[in-house]
Amino acid sequence: MVGIIMGSISDLKVMQEAAEVCKQFGVAYEIDIVSAHRTPLKMIEYATTAREKGIKVIIAGAGGAAHLPGMVASVTTLPVIGVPVKSSNSIDGWDSVLSILQMPSGVPVATVALNGAKNAGILAVQMIGIENKEVAEKLEVYKTELSDKVAEMVSDLHKTL
Amino acid sequence: MVGIIMGSISDLKVMQEAAEVCKQFGVAYEIDIVSAHRTPLKMIEYATTAREKGIKVIIAGAGGAAHLPGMVASVTTLPVIGVPVKSSNSIDGWDSVLSILQMPSGVPVATVALNGAKNAGILAVQMIGIENKEVAEKLEVYKTELSDKVAEMVSDLHKTL
Amino acid sequence: MVGIIMGSISDLKVMQEAAEVCKQFGVAYEIDIVSAHRTPLKMIEYATTAREKGIKVIIAGAGGAAHLPGMVASVTTLPVIGVPVKSSNSIDGWDSVLSILQMPSGVPVATVALNGAKNAGILAVQMIGIENKEVAEKLEVYKTELSDKVAEMVSDLHKTL
Amino acid sequence: MVGIIMGSISDLKVMQEAAEVCKQFGVAYEIDIVSAHRTPLKMIEYATTAREKGIKVIIAGAGGAAHLPGMVASVTTLPVIGVPVKSSNSIDGWDSVLSILQMPSGVPVATVALNGAKNAGILAVQMIGIENKEVAEKLEVYKTELSDKVAEMVSDLHKTL
Amino acid sequence: MVGIIMGSISDLKVMQEAAEVCKQFGVAYEIDIVSAHRTPLKMIEYATTAREKGIKVIIAGAGGAAHLPGMVASVTTLPVIGVPVKSSNSIDGWDSVLSILQMPSGVPVATVALNGAKNAGILAVQMIGIENKEVAEKLEVYKTELSDKVAEMVSDLHKTL
Amino acid sequence: MVGIIMGSISDLKVMQEAAEVCKQFGVAYEIDIVSAHRTPLKMIEYATTAREKGIKVIIAGAGGAAHLPGMVASVTTLPVIGVPVKSSNSIDGWDSVLSILQMPSGVPVATVALNGAKNAGILAVQMIGIENKEVAEKLEVYKTELSDKVAEMVSDLHKTL
Amino acid sequence: MVGIIMGSISDLKVMQEAAEVCKQFGVAYEIDIVSAHRTPLKMIEYATTAREKGIKVIIAGAGGAAHLPGMVASVTTLPVIGVPVKSSNSIDGWDSVLSILQMPSGVPVATVALNGAKNAGILAVQMIGIENKEVAEKLEVYKTELSDKVAEMVSDLHKTL
Amino acid sequence: MVGIIMGSISDLKVMQEAAEVCKQFGVAYEIDIVSAHRTPLKMIEYATTAREKGIKVIIAGAGGAAHLPGMVASVTTLPVIGVPVKSSNSIDGWDSVLSILQMPSGVPVATVALNGAKNAGILAVQMIGIENKEVAEKLEVYKTELSDKVAEMVSDLHKTL
Repeated sequence: MVGIIMGSISDLKVMQEAAEVCKQFGVAYEIDIVSAHRTPLKMIEYATTAREKGIKVIIAGAGGAAHLPGMVASVTTLPVIGVPVKSSNSIDGWDSVLSILQMPSGVPVATVALNGAKNAGILAVQMIGIENKEVAEKLEVYKTELSDKVAEMVSDLHKTL
Repeated sequence: MVGIIMGSISDLKVMQEAAEVCKQFGVAYEIDIVSAHRTPLKMIEYATTAREKGIKVIIAGAGGAAHLPGMVASVTTLPVIGVPVKSSNSIDGWDSVLSILQMPSGVPVATVALNGAKNAGILAVQMIGIENKEVAEKLEVYKTELSDKVAEMVSDLHKTL
Repeated sequence: MVGIIMGSISDLKVMQEAAEVCKQFGVAYEIDIVSAHRTPLKMIEYATTAREKGIKVIIAGAGGAAHLPGMVASVTTLPVIGVPVKSSNSIDGWDSVLSILQMPSGVPVATVALNGAKNAGILAVQMIGIENKEVAEKLEVYKTELSDKVAEMVSDLHKTL
Repeated sequence: MVGIIMGSISDLKVMQEAAEVCKQFGVAYEIDIVSAHRTPLKMIEYATTAREKGIKVIIAGAGGAAHLPGMVASVTTLPVIGVPVKSSNSIDGWDSVLSILQMPSGVPVATVALNGAKNAGILAVQMIGIENKEVAEKLEVYKTELSDKVAEMVSDLHKTL
Repeated sequence: MVGIIMGSISDLKVMQEAAEVCKQFGVAYEIDIVSAHRTPLKMIEYATTAREKGIKVIIAGAGGAAHLPGMVASVTTLPVIGVPVKSSNSIDGWDSVLSILQMPSGVPVATVALNGAKNAGILAVQMIGIENKEVAEKLEVYKTELSDKVAEMVSDLHKTL
Repeated sequence: MVGIIMGSISDLKVMQEAAEVCKQFGVAYEIDIVSAHRTPLKMIEYATTAREKGIKVIIAGAGGAAHLPGMVASVTTLPVIGVPVKSSNSIDGWDSVLSILQMPSGVPVATVALNGAKNAGILAVQMIGIENKEVAEKLEVYKTELSDKVAEMVSDLHKTL
Repeated sequence: MVGIIMGSISDLKVMQEAAEVCKQFGVAYEIDIVSAHRTPLKMIEYATTAREKGIKVIIAGAGGAAHLPGMVASVTTLPVIGVPVKSSNSIDGWDSVLSILQMPSGVPVATVALNGAKNAGILAVQMIGIENKEVAEKLEVYKTELSDKVAEMVSDLHKTL
Repeated sequence: MVGIIMGSISDLKVMQEAAEVCKQFGVAYEIDIVSAHRTPLKMIEYATTAREKGIKVIIAGAGGAAHLPGMVASVTTLPVIGVPVKSSNSIDGWDSVLSILQMPSGVPVATVALNGAKNAGILAVQMIGIENKEVAEKLEVYKTELSDKVAEMVSDLHKTL
């Protein structure tokens, strides 16, 4: 199961793309709201018990001084994927990108692009696909679909020109 | 008492300037190492019990994805001063500045300049000086000294020219 | 009393959030317009007489080359909280953030997030709460409310999914 | 097995920290030099055949316009961890960070901090530890060691003060 | 012939300005969609066979972690012009600019301004004009037209004032 | 007379280049240390009385949250030239550049390049040369010298090659 | 007379604020369109003959790779004020700011804030006011008006609260 | 012939790498010092007469507010390659990069990486190789050498490990 968390329901619009990817690949997931700054104890409990609850990868999205992904990573041994969310008073997204990316030695966060929750979902699926053949094969099919979409675009292009 | 904390002993060189200011103003202080990412539970305990231990202001220094000041602020009602430390693999200090400054609504951190631990100390003394006349008077004297140092510089300048 | 100042009435929209926080916590405040660049003498008079007028913390908001917080800090021994305001011709807010944050040794400004007047208000309340038990208790209640709001969001989330 | 690749032997100094982590956790690894810009066909062959060769995670380091991690990710379904290396003519590391982080939808790279090869190694071990209990337990021990090191620092601190 | 490529049909709006310039100067061109990350093999085939197909200059536009121009340059000896496109989740365009500009020694990309496809077209025409007198003369005429447009603006200005 | 001021004697190394230019052009100057943050009243007095003391242009250098040039400009009607100085804990000079450049409407500062005190001196001389023919002629000679130095470089180049 | 120039009529909206200031202070001015990149010879002629035509200060506005102010400064001994204009494909204004500000030793440009044409006008008036008493007095009146406007704002504020 | 120019002999250390590439590929070149700001008329003459002197591509290097490449491009129809040089008071190279890259529509400069004179040389050779088979073949050989160097690195790597 993939655990998808965020600090506020306002991040759901971005973060639900991660859930949609899991659904598309047939990978179980759960979504929760866990705030590093407003519910720190719940956050620690969430991260501490994640593995025993069957969670294999945690995807955490946060904006501004985005501490959720890194703090979750500090109390779990599961891989944590961080999604920098561009919040309303963000300084162009730099704050969330740097707060998530620049983790100190010993406590990594797998950071994806600004608002890149879809890619966080695919990355989680890839991690599960390391040992799961069925998922790995779906990922191969997905790569073909990406390539097919480009072929469709080329055909659209020729109609446009 | 002012509580001065940092995530690693490598930050002591920067952070001890805060302690020196406290000493200079006759304000009690204690220094501790508390890591958001390596000792998250100790961090929460430190912050939760700070007020009852007699701490009035917390100064927290951290580099990179600097979560210590903000996480401490999430579990105490004391004012927290954050010192962005320029760590060895820092991206020019931007990472620690933005990770400390851009806190979400509800959980402020009083951020000072990059490596500005001395100013963090003065700010802590000013907060204590709100109700403490003796400290406030020392701050007035300090302002005069700042001005006097400029006068000395002018005199040095005239010798140089 | 908390003194809330800004350089122009155009900053009121952002800065009144600080006043609302004070009101919410039952902390007295006054709002004034004091411009570092257009009324420098009034600014100096404001800052010089603030303590004797009963002001305990000054919150100063400014945009662009934001000199108001730092200049006020240069003539008072009270703690000064600076709010970087994103003005209309701002270079993404970097100008006001850096003009307020990077104060020289000896003259700190407690800087909060871009447009973070609400957090400036909470920080001022926390400073007053150092010695004021009643205010400190209200801050504890506020922390619980922050956490409760997350619980409400979780319940909203479950309805959404 | 973890595949560790880089575009030039000059990156080895940074990237070997990833290998050291693998060794420390008893996880097999191999190191190779694969350049996106100078050996593009070898790169594609490397990435295409990685899974069948028993590689479970690829760690790719690169500097400047750092295309290696993203291009490898485009031709494998394994998770790819990208290490932004600060090269000699880098613009403060921003070039490699952004070239690796900001991947388009569909092709994620798990980005770690600038020069963060050690964390790339830990992240790879965490991914393998999803299904491997022995590795997961070693990660728990590692977390304890991180915490113990802070305790040692505290003891050093008390000697220093 | 000038080969104009981009990674997605969403870049066509920007990139067609390059085609319009070619048309205006009577230089043959073709447009194609070639994605570094979704069709890496097609990209390599495109670049490898470009010269023999009669392409003299390649213009490649891409956004975000923009690898297309640099990867094409890695497998052709033709000059490659890179157009950084400001994509929807771009960090202000810095990602595409740096991913295209900061190429390592040995594999240059001629980078133009953000969204500067028109200038990419002119640059391609200038390259062809090195040996082609007719094209060179058209470029002289174009310079005169640029200057004439300024003269028209002056006349408009005088009407406005 | 040109008034050259700075906030600290540590800026003299940069700022004396402005004085050397004045000397070279036979324009009177005086140097003083005036700190916006440590001697705000002296600063105001300096700026208020500058014109009556015969000062025609003020050159003010400052680093970090560089308020001196803008604050001086707020209390004089003389033109003020600001020199952003790269101080020891500067964030790459951005802080002083933006604090001086981004002045609000009504109170300009003529900003020159980072550490550009020499150019500040030339700009001051140019302002005086508006009405002073002798100075204007020296500026013409200076332009010739700039051009002559390039000719010397060309001759050195030919010896080198 | 103040010479106000810009590279394109699209900059007029920003630049006419400089003209309005001149008009307000009774200082003669002329506006022209002179492009560094499209009419380089006209630009050189403009700058070379400016002094003899009675121009005392040149205000030049430009966006993007903004070469007009610096190039004009290279061929005149008059003071040149540069206005960085935020053009449509600007990278947040950084391009025009840095292209104008960071002039090499020997050729200064007095740079004002992004889109700061109004301040460019005031700066030009201040330069003329160095020797012109009448203009200097108007500048004193203007300072009073700036201060009066703040007083009006205070009165508006009290009505609002 | 390739014309290699720079504004100051201090840039020669960077720029001579372009000359070395030309020599290596048997392409004629000449080096000259031409300053946009100190010898603007020589610059215009250089650029105006370049084509008739047999120059096919111009490589121009400059630092800070780097106007040379763009101004040369404004008076020639030859392709101009710009090399952003990181000068001594540069703001991390951003000034020269943006001053060269962000040219307005109609006047492109083919920009390479910071201090990327070697790549400027290769790009010039590629432009000449469009119509010159011998040069094109040498470029193919060069690509093979780049690949061979990686093979050597791999062999060095295996000795190291």
